[in-house]
Amino acid sequence: MNFKDTPIAEIDALMERSWKAFLVYRERPLSDRAAFMRIIAEEMDASGDELITTAMAETNLPEARLKNERNRTIFQLKSYGEAAERGDWLEARIDTADNNRNPPKPDIRKMLVPLGPVVVFGASNFPFAYSTAGGDTACAFAAGCSVVVKAHPAHPATSAIVATAIQKAISRCGLPEDLFIHVFGTSTETGKTLVTHKRTKAVGFTGSYTGGKALFDWANQRKEPIPVFAEMSSVNPVFLLPDQMEKEPEKTAEMYAGSITLGVGQFCTNPGLIFGIKGDALEKFKTVLGEKIAGVAPAKMLHPGIAKAYHEKKSKALSQQGNTLIKESTVKAGELEGEAAVATTTASVFINNTVLHEEVFGPYSMIIECADEKEMVEAVSKLEGQLTATLMATEKDMLDYPDLISEVSNICGRFIVNGVPTGVEVCLAMQHGGPFPATTDSRFTSVGADGIKRFARPLAYQNWPDSQLPDELKNANPLQIYRTVNNEPTKNSI
Amino acid sequence: MNFKDTPIAEIDALMERSWKAFLVYRERPLSDRAAFMRIIAEEMDASGDELITTAMAETNLPEARLKNERNRTIFQLKSYGEAAERGDWLEARIDTADNNRNPPKPDIRKMLVPLGPVVVFGASNFPFAYSTAGGDTACAFAAGCSVVVKAHPAHPATSAIVATAIQKAISRCGLPEDLFIHVFGTSTETGKTLVTHKRTKAVGFTGSYTGGKALFDWANQRKEPIPVFAEMSSVNPVFLLPDQMEKEPEKTAEMYAGSITLGVGQFCTNPGLIFGIKGDALEKFKTVLGEKIAGVAPAKMLHPGIAKAYHEKKSKALSQQGNTLIKESTVKAGELEGEAAVATTTASVFINNTVLHEEVFGPYSMIIECADEKEMVEAVSKLEGQLTATLMATEKDMLDYPDLISEVSNICGRFIVNGVPTGVEVCLAMQHGGPFPATTDSRFTSVGADGIKRFARPLAYQNWPDSQLPDELKNANPLQIYRTVNNEPTKNSI
Repeated sequence: MNFKDTPIAEIDALMERSWKAFLVYRERPLSDRAAFMRIIAEEMDASGDELITTAMAETNLPEARLKNERNRTIFQLKSYGEAAERGDWLEARIDTADNNRNPPKPDIRKMLVPLGPVVVFGASNFPFAYSTAGGDTACAFAAGCSVVVKAHPAHPATSAIVATAIQKAISRCGLPEDLFIHVFGTSTETGKTLVTHKRTKAVGFTGSYTGGKALFDWANQRKEPIPVFAEMSSVNPVFLLPDQMEKEPEKTAEMYAGSITLGVGQFCTNPGLIFGIKGDALEKFKTVLGEKIAGVAPAKMLHPGIAKAYHEKKSKALSQQGNTLIKESTVKAGELEGEAAVATTTASVFINNTVLHEEVFGPYSMIIECADEKEMVEAVSKLEGQLTATLMATEKDMLDYPDLISEVSNICGRFIVNGVPTGVEVCLAMQHGGPFPATTDSRFTSVGADGIKRFARPLAYQNWPDSQLPDELKNANPLQIYRTVNNEPTKNSI
Repeated sequence: MNFKDTPIAEIDALMERSWKAFLVYRERPLSDRAAFMRIIAEEMDASGDELITTAMAETNLPEARLKNERNRTIFQLKSYGEAAERGDWLEARIDTADNNRNPPKPDIRKMLVPLGPVVVFGASNFPFAYSTAGGDTACAFAAGCSVVVKAHPAHPATSAIVATAIQKAISRCGLPEDLFIHVFGTSTETGKTLVTHKRTKAVGFTGSYTGGKALFDWANQRKEPIPVFAEMSSVNPVFLLPDQMEKEPEKTAEMYAGSITLGVGQFCTNPGLIFGIKGDALEKFKTVLGEKIAGVAPAKMLHPGIAKAYHEKKSKALSQQGNTLIKESTVKAGELEGEAAVATTTASVFINNTVLHEEVFGPYSMIIECADEKEMVEAVSKLEGQLTATLMATEKDMLDYPDLISEVSNICGRFIVNGVPTGVEVCLAMQHGGPFPATTDSRFTSVGADGIKRFARPLAYQNWPDSQLPDELKNANPLQIYRTVNNEPTKNSI
């Protein structure tokens, strides 16, 4: 199939249509949003084998993985819709009037309201869950926003099928046709025109640092700057602490070989840096990790651009003085494939060479030998912001390494103990977002229902007659949502 | 007194000290933060007449107003401290593990953690409540951050007294001396150096558009961009609707004469634009408003720069073709004084001349005559973001003007019915923040305990042993805070 770029000249009219659809949609009750999102999920499911085979052809991802990912996407749509209807995310606050106070205290009520049209740029590595009807789109719809998606150039046909599913759901729910608009564009100009249009009120992006940072800069240079939620780059450091490592270096190595090579390493939470304290346990870990990695067969990466970047960045990392290959896949990789590899260096080499801090997107990881906690902490202090950080540690280790824990907590959004960073649970407590450059706004998450809040802002109603207030804030609490009334969370009426 | 600028070369060391103090303070329990803030309040109170007379001399504000403002500042410190301890702002979320699921569901717990050192630039019009120990500082301390305040050049002696009160509280509480650092600087360079320092993690500002936008741009151009919460400019439009105006045009005019001239019009919520529907009621409103305004004696403004800007901007507005003076103070203003004035124009003139949309900081307001709702809505669609908007309306008016209400809700943070925008209640439901350029981030408030969230970000703990979790997230819920456990708000233990 051939997908023509949407002409730049048409984008202005599209954004105006998105704005008009937003004005209608935001007035619909929360229950309508939830119903709409359930029906998108239904339509995603009904897209059947055609969607899976199309995505397999465009992304080289295997069938089982894509089927799982579609289920996850369906779960996101349904659960964010349920969360929208449950209403906790609205942060409804009511402070009632006090006419006996001098001066009298007014009645003030506040809740989150949607920002307006949201432009979404999906990820190539999650063609469903972080693309057309993925997390950003689901959060925007849940918040009450309209959505404009620029199809990912690496999977336009997949994106078109999902767009059709959303459009069918819009039609079935009697919502404005332009609530969802699908745009194609292979040039930077398309993205820039979308982000800088005055009707665009927020941007969601998952991808490279270069791409995300460009959107962030355009958005901030607008006459009216707008928020950009870009998830960009993370090397997800892991810290192997001595007491834990004494126990099971081999098991840990096996677990990490799996995490490093999962999905040809094409996850934003792939563990790219593994710090350990020099010693026998670390040597054992390295040996087993090397053996396991050597046995992993290369596989096709998402698209030629990703494969090329992986080979170049891996070669660059391995060519740095003092960084040594431990093992790589024994089977030579084809041109579009990624071969797993692990390397090792010392903390002093790492600290003094920021090339080694850069993300190598693919099944590559580096083990950094530290002399002691002090050196480990120093290395952490040089790291940029990360989505995740992981300790392999016993409770004794955690008590023995307080400075490390303090330092690591400065740079990550999710802090894991005795696990692997890959695998991002979709739940309310999830934080998928971290200090820059992991994301452009560490105060928000792109996974879990709290992600809805990215696309909303508080609006306070002072002294409104009850009849004219939104249902969410009426005295009777007709929607039966939790509200904080005079500082106390409650579902009670007033 | 003479306050020397802090040498630029010293700022690096100061920020490093602030960072170290932050690392200690953030580990202290919530109850310590609340106690510390209560003691700052005590010390503010103990600063007695010296603080009031110093502020009177530096700001030209009257004694009663300053005494009230100190009380408000004390209330903010105490109530934000209490909110910090109550812990709702932490957004604690717990999703417990499910080992029977395939794959097993991990235990994930999330709460807000402080960002790091916050640099605060206070306002000249609130020398206590939005300055040295004002709302931004109180929110930052409540969040667990250290604070660096650049003293406002218009009230350095006042700022120094308040800084001493904070330093005494730090000492009484046994907290790190550098938890609060006071800097003087009259050049742009001081602000830029503070905002661009790598240890600075957020900025609070209240003041002009030019000042706030400069900080915003510097912050976004950093290698690691940081959030800037700048409250900048707002003309706070008011809409007089016909049914309400038929009832009491005179009373409304009296109320607005008071709001326009309160504190020589030097409030960020001063009503600068008043839209009405052409007719007899509007004429009556104008006549009474003019009479009342004429009777208000000029008074000294905050500082010569503000007085000069007021005279220039008022003259510029009045010189625009089609904008006509209704009345001004009959007593001529002295050089440093501001004289009240009201002008009037038509919607078509207003729509086509953006000079008339600009804030005139002081006791000046303009009445815009609209032919009908359509013209009123068109005028609103040309307005930039605002802190507040106000309807003078009956329920009938609100039902008759749905398009106006929809359009106005796009541009404001607080939407008032039958009141005046001046007077910002300090409570949880308050939203003091609006779409750009009212503030740089409409998703947050600078008044009320929700302002604490500006200086924090979520951190998720995955699979941590209970003993090592922060108290806020431990199974037993030792702090007895509200937490959302498996999607349900509760104070129960797990």
